[in-house]
Amino acid sequence: MNNYKMTIQYDGGRYKGWQRLGSGENTIQAKIENVISQMVDKQVEIIGCSRTDAGVHALDQIANFKTNENLSEAEIKSYLNKYLPQDITITDVELVHDRFHSRYNAKDKTYLFKIWNEEHSHPFMRKYSMHVDTKLDIVKMKNASTYFIGSHDFTAFSNAKSKKKSMVREIYDVEINENSGFIEIRVRGNGFLYNMVRKMVGTLIEVGLGEIHEAAIPEILTSKERKQTGRLADSCGLYLEKVEF
Amino acid sequence: MNNYKMTIQYDGGRYKGWQRLGSGENTIQAKIENVISQMVDKQVEIIGCSRTDAGVHALDQIANFKTNENLSEAEIKSYLNKYLPQDITITDVELVHDRFHSRYNAKDKTYLFKIWNEEHSHPFMRKYSMHVDTKLDIVKMKNASTYFIGSHDFTAFSNAKSKKKSMVREIYDVEINENSGFIEIRVRGNGFLYNMVRKMVGTLIEVGLGEIHEAAIPEILTSKERKQTGRLADSCGLYLEKVEF
Repeated sequence: MNNYKMTIQYDGGRYKGWQRLGSGENTIQAKIENVISQMVDKQVEIIGCSRTDAGVHALDQIANFKTNENLSEAEIKSYLNKYLPQDITITDVELVHDRFHSRYNAKDKTYLFKIWNEEHSHPFMRKYSMHVDTKLDIVKMKNASTYFIGSHDFTAFSNAKSKKKSMVREIYDVEINENSGFIEIRVRGNGFLYNMVRKMVGTLIEVGLGEIHEAAIPEILTSKERKQTGRLADSCGLYLEKVEF
Repeated sequence: MNNYKMTIQYDGGRYKGWQRLGSGENTIQAKIENVISQMVDKQVEIIGCSRTDAGVHALDQIANFKTNENLSEAEIKSYLNKYLPQDITITDVELVHDRFHSRYNAKDKTYLFKIWNEEHSHPFMRKYSMHVDTKLDIVKMKNASTYFIGSHDFTAFSNAKSKKKSMVREIYDVEINENSGFIEIRVRGNGFLYNMVRKMVGTLIEVGLGEIHEAAIPEILTSKERKQTGRLADSCGLYLEKVEF
């Protein structure tokens, strides 16, 4: 049995997220599985590292699949890119150890969120960033972000649909940078609940607008109340940027 | 009479180009004129520096309009950005001399063409660059590009629809750079015929593919025959980058 690891980039704009949902075809997973299944002439399931939400992008999603076929890495990459839609690209294929598992072996993941923080819209990035037209106080946002670091119960920052056994996740780092009109927020952690990064960013935006106090984060975390957090930030600003194994 | 100069950015993807065509509304000029006319409560005509083709983008288009209304530059900018679609943005408004004319006063224009030159597609730039999946020989393209510099009759590089008195244009500079998978071609000149940059780039691409000889450009120019030039490069790769007055 061969185990192939794929590195994938996608514009999530027109998809219902990563995860295949029943018979629904409009997910990234379904699009890739269909092409692989056609290639090896057998129904194949792929295991993705992160189940990105509807509309969320990926610069470096990892997924693996197993097959008895002996195909070269270059053959697979070229076949997939030929038949996948243009908004999904396989940037690398690698034959890996039989026990490699994209989800279980992922040690940490980095999500990047792009905010376009100018009064006017950005014609070329309007689908790839969230537009906030009021100037954000980045110092307050940086201060607030430090409270996320460490292990916390992130119930308040999850969606009611999250039904995980444990709501505790560890955040290793939150980095906030300004870059010619954009504010880029990078969140690195061992795992994320459904909607968690978008809730964290939405809360940081309200801190930057002065609507939530920068020192209120610890209280919000311990409250475990979803109504205390900021709005859900737009999915089009979020990218799965990097996965480490 | 006040004369206002606007700097405009747009994603031309869903428009029939800059120039208002009869009663057709789906042009950049029409979109902007409609908002200005609504602002000053009177039909206003704007004069654009460059009539970009359908699908072509602009990073720095210049247009001006005259009105008897006394409005501040900031008021105009803010009103326009509020009512324009998100793929058209006014980045600057400036009150200028009464005799300033966007088209007559333009001294030189720079067009930028982006080619994505990798086997796989680019999920985020697929609508903002032309995908050429065969490796291009950039040295040959650079050699060929030098023949464009100077004053030439560009009939062979124009569209049959061009009915200008003179087909002579002066090209000051052609710059070709590689930048992480992209090939960027910048063409600076005193003016351009309809489709001229896209025909020049299409020809350079065929030089890069080895289909047209790099030293054939002078012959093609003197032939004045449109069938000798390369294919028309995709409009989505082209940007009006800079106008100098």
